[in-house]
Amino acid sequence: MAFSERVSRLKSSLIREILAAAQRPEVMSFAGGLPAEVMLPKVQWQDMPLSMGQYGMSEGEPSLREALAAEARKLGVPCEASQVLVVSGSQQTLDLAAKLYIDKGTQILLEAPTYLAALQIFQLFGADCLTVPLEADGPDLAQMRARLEQHRPAFVYLIPTFQNPSAVRYSEAKREAVAALLDEFGVTLIEDEPYRELTFDGGSATPIVSRLKKASWIYTGTVSKTLLPGLRVGYLIASPDLFPHLLRLKQSADLHTNRVGQWQAMQWIGSDQFQQHLGELRSFYRLRRDAFQVALQTHFADLADWQVPQGGLFFWLSLKQPLDTRTLLKSALEQDVTFMPGEPFFSEPERNHGHLRLNFSHIDPARLDEGLKRLATVIRQAQAAQAA
Amino acid sequence: MAFSERVSRLKSSLIREILAAAQRPEVMSFAGGLPAEVMLPKVQWQDMPLSMGQYGMSEGEPSLREALAAEARKLGVPCEASQVLVVSGSQQTLDLAAKLYIDKGTQILLEAPTYLAALQIFQLFGADCLTVPLEADGPDLAQMRARLEQHRPAFVYLIPTFQNPSAVRYSEAKREAVAALLDEFGVTLIEDEPYRELTFDGGSATPIVSRLKKASWIYTGTVSKTLLPGLRVGYLIASPDLFPHLLRLKQSADLHTNRVGQWQAMQWIGSDQFQQHLGELRSFYRLRRDAFQVALQTHFADLADWQVPQGGLFFWLSLKQPLDTRTLLKSALEQDVTFMPGEPFFSEPERNHGHLRLNFSHIDPARLDEGLKRLATVIRQAQAAQAA
Repeated sequence: MAFSERVSRLKSSLIREILAAAQRPEVMSFAGGLPAEVMLPKVQWQDMPLSMGQYGMSEGEPSLREALAAEARKLGVPCEASQVLVVSGSQQTLDLAAKLYIDKGTQILLEAPTYLAALQIFQLFGADCLTVPLEADGPDLAQMRARLEQHRPAFVYLIPTFQNPSAVRYSEAKREAVAALLDEFGVTLIEDEPYRELTFDGGSATPIVSRLKKASWIYTGTVSKTLLPGLRVGYLIASPDLFPHLLRLKQSADLHTNRVGQWQAMQWIGSDQFQQHLGELRSFYRLRRDAFQVALQTHFADLADWQVPQGGLFFWLSLKQPLDTRTLLKSALEQDVTFMPGEPFFSEPERNHGHLRLNFSHIDPARLDEGLKRLATVIRQAQAAQAA
Repeated sequence: MAFSERVSRLKSSLIREILAAAQRPEVMSFAGGLPAEVMLPKVQWQDMPLSMGQYGMSEGEPSLREALAAEARKLGVPCEASQVLVVSGSQQTLDLAAKLYIDKGTQILLEAPTYLAALQIFQLFGADCLTVPLEADGPDLAQMRARLEQHRPAFVYLIPTFQNPSAVRYSEAKREAVAALLDEFGVTLIEDEPYRELTFDGGSATPIVSRLKKASWIYTGTVSKTLLPGLRVGYLIASPDLFPHLLRLKQSADLHTNRVGQWQAMQWIGSDQFQQHLGELRSFYRLRRDAFQVALQTHFADLADWQVPQGGLFFWLSLKQPLDTRTLLKSALEQDVTFMPGEPFFSEPERNHGHLRLNFSHIDPARLDEGLKRLATVIRQAQAAQAA
């Protein structure tokens, strides 16, 4: 069997296998990033024209591109509809970016920790992953400068707003500083913002791409966290030098994004109805975040440290006594609990033991306390066994 | 700007640019492979459960996988639902196969001519494309054996039923012989069948993958030609040794195929309603094929040779006086006519001048005669200029 060299780097996806395990209804899952079912909006389809069934343009539906560009301009991103590419979920942006930039051994710069599905596809294409540690308000700037001075990464991949998994939101000062660094070294920025709208303190911050003066950039978002993930509708907005390449890569990947989902997204983006839905979503998730914090304080106060997330879908816990949290998964599943180990969010998992990513949006509130109690017990038992 | 080495092989897509030009309503297009708008079925959405809006499984919807496996077994393909992967249009199968097999310089074996979007993505990943010429009943078997003896291609990519662009349907004898050759040399088969259901003479033929005894295989199809291309729902069925890799590659590409389109496809696949629709589609396209043949005989009898297609969506013309048909595009567009030049369907375009692919499914019948007349005039003028 002669597969490509790339396939030797194709890892089994922990996300996929845990989500598969979490399909059992009795499992209390803190693992995925699933929206709460009760908050999926009741969408209408009867007005969709039959023409949405025909082949469409690789760029995406013109009116959706216009609406997405208008929303991005409101955030301060200087762009036209001609720079918007509708993609099959923002995961596809990562696939297109990997194709555009990564040969075997290409250096790229990532946050540590970073989104594990991004890490997987960049590594699949053979990237050499440099990292910069995250602090509470964004990356360590001295280390970022050092990486840029010593290397010439093809791009920097950042999730500045409610980062997955750490929930970190970059400060204004760090956003400015990062933009200045990227301009200074002429390094492309890929800015991934699935969680921007899910803010609980009303705070906001202008995207980093809108602060760049020279560097090339790709900004990517999705309707998966705010509308319906099953539509598989995301988008990227790129600086004009990158757009034509990304468009051709999109066409060769799947011709175009499904038009049915695009049509539904068009009914919402930029509408008052969507603003109202987002407000309800923020209130709902804020309550879930608050309840989760209470339960965490009950069961994890002596076990772990964490920041209360001001947005997004996750708590990021750091165990006071670190251990490889991947080893906890089996015992947790035996207790009908699952979670996301922290190690796969690092390019060097063996050097970063002891973190857990816990999703607070999807768990049934009636089972939250029991779920966290069982998880804490699993950790205590493992630590006791380790100490013995 | 440091792009990947791959990007140097990223060609501008002729398909995309011609389709863009053909958007003008006054253009008579013989270029694309678009279904006729009047034959897009009127689909219903009101019964779709809200849960289709949630994230789904990377494999695809279980009931759709079951239905696709059942249909494939009716064709003689020995498979279970566990071997079915729902993809974002069968174009994505080509992307996943390229990732699975192709490093720079990897040899693969293709028909000459072959589907140009397949050629593009295989070349993007760096494939060294070996070819075997097509005859009226399938590939030249002696040349196919010679290629397999002299090389060890990672896979063979074939479109045995109403091939795009040539409309060739392999005979039973050649299907058997090709399967035997692939088993003998242990080479993986990728069998692409978007047009199988669009048969005009009632003829059928068992897929080649179902005749294999040892070789690995990927069989791929789509609802784009029979239901609605805008859904972007295709599928692949793979031998069990390949499936786990393809599944992981699918997940890293876009997590899963949109569930809205999958739900709609589920309402049709295997239903009596779908059989009735397919019957209507075949009758409709047969009439268009017949009318096209009459108009071609009027305007092209002295210019080109062709076979009457027994299925699919295309006539494949070979000019009696070959010239580079790409050079005709500009003059044709000035006459508000467009078509697909034959050269991009060959890995060596400069050695294969003088073919045109003409789509007969999408043109308004009232404009068919005028369109072919204008195209014939453009060719005559170019040939006269060449002779002068």
